Amino acid sequence: MRNIKVTACYRGTKYHGFQRQNNAVTIQQIIEDNLSVILGGQKVVIQGCSRTDTGVHALEYCFSFQTEREIPLKGIERGLNSALPKDISILSCEEVDEDFHARFSCKGKEYIYKLHCSESPNPFMQDLAYHYRRKFNLALMQEECKAFIGTHDFKAFCSTGSDKDITVRTIYDFTVEQNGTEVIMRVSGDGFLYNMVRIMVGTLLWINEGKIPAGTLADIIESKDRGRAGKTALACGLYLNKVFY
Amino acid sequence: MRNIKVTACYRGTKYHGFQRQNNAVTIQQIIEDNLSVILGGQKVVIQGCSRTDTGVHALEYCFSFQTEREIPLKGIERGLNSALPKDISILSCEEVDEDFHARFSCKGKEYIYKLHCSESPNPFMQDLAYHYRRKFNLALMQEECKAFIGTHDFKAFCSTGSDKDITVRTIYDFTVEQNGTEVIMRVSGDGFLYNMVRIMVGTLLWINEGKIPAGTLADIIESKDRGRAGKTALACGLYLNKVFY
Repeated sequence: MRNIKVTACYRGTKYHGFQRQNNAVTIQQIIEDNLSVILGGQKVVIQGCSRTDTGVHALEYCFSFQTEREIPLKGIERGLNSALPKDISILSCEEVDEDFHARFSCKGKEYIYKLHCSESPNPFMQDLAYHYRRKFNLALMQEECKAFIGTHDFKAFCSTGSDKDITVRTIYDFTVEQNGTEVIMRVSGDGFLYNMVRIMVGTLLWINEGKIPAGTLADIIESKDRGRAGKTALACGLYLNKVFY
Repeated sequence: MRNIKVTACYRGTKYHGFQRQNNAVTIQQIIEDNLSVILGGQKVVIQGCSRTDTGVHALEYCFSFQTEREIPLKGIERGLNSALPKDISILSCEEVDEDFHARFSCKGKEYIYKLHCSESPNPFMQDLAYHYRRKFNLALMQEECKAFIGTHDFKAFCSTGSDKDITVRTIYDFTVEQNGTEVIMRVSGDGFLYNMVRIMVGTLLWINEGKIPAGTLADIIESKDRGRAGKTALACGLYLNKVFY
């Protein structure tokens, strides 16, 4: 049995996230349906590296699947790219060991969150960044975000409804950069709780707006109280950027 | 009478170009209709700096209009940004001399043309770049494009159907840059004929593909023969980038 790892990217605007659902169009379903045709009708289930929410994008997303078909990797890649809608793209396919699993083999991930900081909207970033009209204090955000780095219990940064018992995660790095009207927040870690990045971003923005005092992020983490963190930032600014194996 | 200069940007995908037409939705019409409401019902005609074709974008587009209404500039800007669809954005409004005219006062323009050079499509550049699947020879393109610079009769680079008698234009600069899969061609000049930038780009790409021999661009310009130049490149890669006054 061949085990195949696929790297893809997608614009999540039109989809109800990655994971297959009943009665909603998801990226997994679109890929599985098209892959099945390419594999000559084989029913195929792909294993994604992660769930993503409605409207969230991926610049690098990995999934894996098994097949006995002897179609060349380039044929799978080209076949999928011809068949898939233009908001989903296959970047590469490779053969991997049989014990590789896109989700369980994953050692960490990097997300970016994009803000368009300007009074005027940006017609080219519609659904691709959070349009933030307030003054953005870059130096403050670069200082505050450091509190996230390290191993912490991130229960305060997890939406209710999550099924995760263990809420301890390690954040490798968190940076904030600004280039003109575009701000990019970049966070990497060994794993992320439900809505964790979006709540981290929302909390930083509340600090930026003075709704949460500067210097209190470590206390909020320590409190494990979702009520003390900020609002969950909009999905459209979030991109899964890298998956580490 | 106040004379007001407005700088805007737009994603041209959904519009039949800038200029008002019967039976087709254009950017001019959308702006005029919304501006008229903001000006308390005054019928207003805006003067655009340039026509743009269906699907062409603008990162900086100027238009001007006259009004006797005493609405503050910030009010016009904010009013328009609240009312306009998200693919048209107002960047600034300023009061200018009564003899300023967005089209006739224009001293030159800069366009950029974006290519996405990769086998895989880019879900984030759909309708925003030309997806070019062939190998792109950057050094060759950087060398060849120099033939456009200077004052020439660009009749060979003008679509038929143009009403321009004088086809001499001065190109100030033409550059080609590549950053990963993104190629940007940048051209500035005192004026451009109908489809001129798209034909320049299409001709360079035919040289890249060997369909036109390298080193013959000066001859093609000299020939004034549209039949010797390349194909008109797709509209979706073209952006009006700057307008000089």
